[in-house]
Amino acid sequence: MRVVDIIEKKRDNFVLTNEEISYVIKNYAEGNVPDYQMSALLMAIYFNGMTREETAALTKEMLNSGDVIDLSKLEGVKLDKHSTGGVGDKTSLVVGPLVAACGGKLAKMSGRGLGHTGGTLDKLEAIEGFNISIGEDDFFRQVNEIGVAIVGQTANLVPADKLLYALRDVTATVPSIPLIAASIMSKKLASGADKIVLDVKVGSGAFMENLEDAEKLAEAMVEIGDSFGKEVVAVLSNMDQPLGHAIGNAIEVREAIDTLQGNGPTDFQVLCVELATELLTLAGIENPKKKIATALENGDAYRKFVSMVDAQGGSVAQIASDSLPRAKEVIPYYPTENGYIVEIDTAEIGRAAMLLGAGRASKEDEIDMAVGLESFIKLGKKVSTDEAVIMIHSNGAVEEVVEVLNKAIKIGDMLVEKPIIYKKIRNS
Amino acid sequence: MRVVDIIEKKRDNFVLTNEEISYVIKNYAEGNVPDYQMSALLMAIYFNGMTREETAALTKEMLNSGDVIDLSKLEGVKLDKHSTGGVGDKTSLVVGPLVAACGGKLAKMSGRGLGHTGGTLDKLEAIEGFNISIGEDDFFRQVNEIGVAIVGQTANLVPADKLLYALRDVTATVPSIPLIAASIMSKKLASGADKIVLDVKVGSGAFMENLEDAEKLAEAMVEIGDSFGKEVVAVLSNMDQPLGHAIGNAIEVREAIDTLQGNGPTDFQVLCVELATELLTLAGIENPKKKIATALENGDAYRKFVSMVDAQGGSVAQIASDSLPRAKEVIPYYPTENGYIVEIDTAEIGRAAMLLGAGRASKEDEIDMAVGLESFIKLGKKVSTDEAVIMIHSNGAVEEVVEVLNKAIKIGDMLVEKPIIYKKIRNS
Repeated sequence: MRVVDIIEKKRDNFVLTNEEISYVIKNYAEGNVPDYQMSALLMAIYFNGMTREETAALTKEMLNSGDVIDLSKLEGVKLDKHSTGGVGDKTSLVVGPLVAACGGKLAKMSGRGLGHTGGTLDKLEAIEGFNISIGEDDFFRQVNEIGVAIVGQTANLVPADKLLYALRDVTATVPSIPLIAASIMSKKLASGADKIVLDVKVGSGAFMENLEDAEKLAEAMVEIGDSFGKEVVAVLSNMDQPLGHAIGNAIEVREAIDTLQGNGPTDFQVLCVELATELLTLAGIENPKKKIATALENGDAYRKFVSMVDAQGGSVAQIASDSLPRAKEVIPYYPTENGYIVEIDTAEIGRAAMLLGAGRASKEDEIDMAVGLESFIKLGKKVSTDEAVIMIHSNGAVEEVVEVLNKAIKIGDMLVEKPIIYKKIRNS
Repeated sequence: MRVVDIIEKKRDNFVLTNEEISYVIKNYAEGNVPDYQMSALLMAIYFNGMTREETAALTKEMLNSGDVIDLSKLEGVKLDKHSTGGVGDKTSLVVGPLVAACGGKLAKMSGRGLGHTGGTLDKLEAIEGFNISIGEDDFFRQVNEIGVAIVGQTANLVPADKLLYALRDVTATVPSIPLIAASIMSKKLASGADKIVLDVKVGSGAFMENLEDAEKLAEAMVEIGDSFGKEVVAVLSNMDQPLGHAIGNAIEVREAIDTLQGNGPTDFQVLCVELATELLTLAGIENPKKKIATALENGDAYRKFVSMVDAQGGSVAQIASDSLPRAKEVIPYYPTENGYIVEIDTAEIGRAAMLLGAGRASKEDEIDMAVGLESFIKLGKKVSTDEAVIMIHSNGAVEEVVEVLNKAIKIGDMLVEKPIIYKKIRNS
């Protein structure tokens, strides 16, 4: 088998066999296939796509390039939840404890933020002492006892994806549906869950900017789940505006706590309830909506969060006393004109938070846990120049941030509104 | 400027600016752009093509990556001739002396053979002592005095093409019209000629297997010539059958000598006369057809060949005494059935000659100058199993060669004939 023949075959839009896909990915992961052949193949895949079978074979080979986590020490149905990433997306902080409070078991491995999107691990580390690298035994014990743990990925989870993603990033081959689907699903499958809920973000702050592409990605991921005999539900949700109000780290933890106590922003709460309902349904738990409502009302959800923080070494006192890091200044931001918000460049809103220090421009950057945006901008909101719509939590200059916000928020005279949830796609 | 943005732009089918093309090629040639980005860009070019302006910019940057030969020491119009490569293609050996005999000046840099195609330099080296690496001063003196010299390319002619071609070869990005056109034309333009005749082969023994692709390639090359202010004529010629009879090295030199004396195979002679006519016309020489006929008849063309051989250190005595290397055995090959030759896999005929030792499977292989095929197979020829159509000149076993020939020659009951010259495309 020669890699050049495999590239040529894909270039000419023939379907690759499982053996061919296996050969090229395995040898790439082992360093036997050079980057220049892989990038040519990736570009050919960008143009000609992959069939459902090809995508499954790719996922399988990526998955097998590293460790596959065995969750059999966990009792009951092992649930997992994944978001394709957005702005103000503190969903896991709420959904994890909420599902646990209703009897589900969520063994969650999360990532860090990069660019305009935040990361769950970064947010949790705003809590003093919170440990995202607990050992495997502690992880299993915690999930069995409390029902939820959120940790970082182990080093050797799908190493082929790390290599491929780094290569795609510099060769303009990132936005390919089968490559994205295989990348996400190989990691989810390697994480060992039985049933998975995918939060596929759609809009100006998401990886998939339009509904059509998001649907294709969701379908591809659900189909991969099917090929591996895993129940998968994809929830397509709105990312044409920041999710909830808070964008940052400590500030998002505070909003998650509010939401767990039943006082969250509507859009964020609706999404969390929806995702938790799907997870609980997959786990076979009855009356999930009612259980969720009760847990949010009677404090169970919040108490699960506190238990998780405690189990992972985080400071419960800091949470109880509402003394998470706070920025030195809170500066109001006023709209540039009167009217309705008709369009938001949500990625730019995320970038504004990054400029404050809430996120990373490159992997090496340090994060300022205190800063961020408290944003009340939503599509269709009526605004005026004398009423602040964003509170900028800052430890430094904000001129550039204000400029970015001015450009990112379009005000007009039309009333534009979009749903919170667009669609659900499932294989079960 | 970032290379990943340039790749993305081409991927999304936007037109690259001259600056972008210049940036990426220059930096690639200098080793600053990694192979993996270049191969992704090449694949994007494979899919989306290049405009005329982009192709010209690519050619210019490749050309500038190395030495550009200054032919100003040559008197009169500097002519060049290039073939895209075929089987039995000894055209330069005839066209060079023929043009010189009629008053033209051909300063020709040639290449070696690889795979099923032979190379002019290899053929000339069948003549004892023939030196293809004469110095620049000798080269100019010879062209000025005799009118023709055929030498190897200097080491630093278009180094970017060497790098790019090696990369294309292993990333399935060879068959892209703009890339092929820029590769050929950058070398032609770097060789310094004023006016160029391109012999674009079409058919089963050629790089371009169908007329449509060959036309596109010819147009692209003629357009590049136009962008550089050079008159270029492309002659699209038949490569659905071997050219002439001889396929090998010494054996092709003998056929070239016969042709220079007016006794060549019809198809080969027609092509040589056509190419020489175009070259002489470009040089502004009047009545070219008549001059050519005279030179072939009165021995002038042959004498120019002898002068060239002599000037480049080759043995004139060996030619005069017809003592070029000969194979130990000459074995007749008989058709497998009666009928007409309806199809020839000409590349496979070339490969049969290579198996005898007349060509190289890889760059390091040594050539046997004596061996080859004397083939009388032409499309439309009536054949019978009791009349040999090929004489195999061999220094070893021929079983495999016969098998290849059996498969390569299709016999049927239809009379298929194709022209020798399909079309001419020019910018003058």
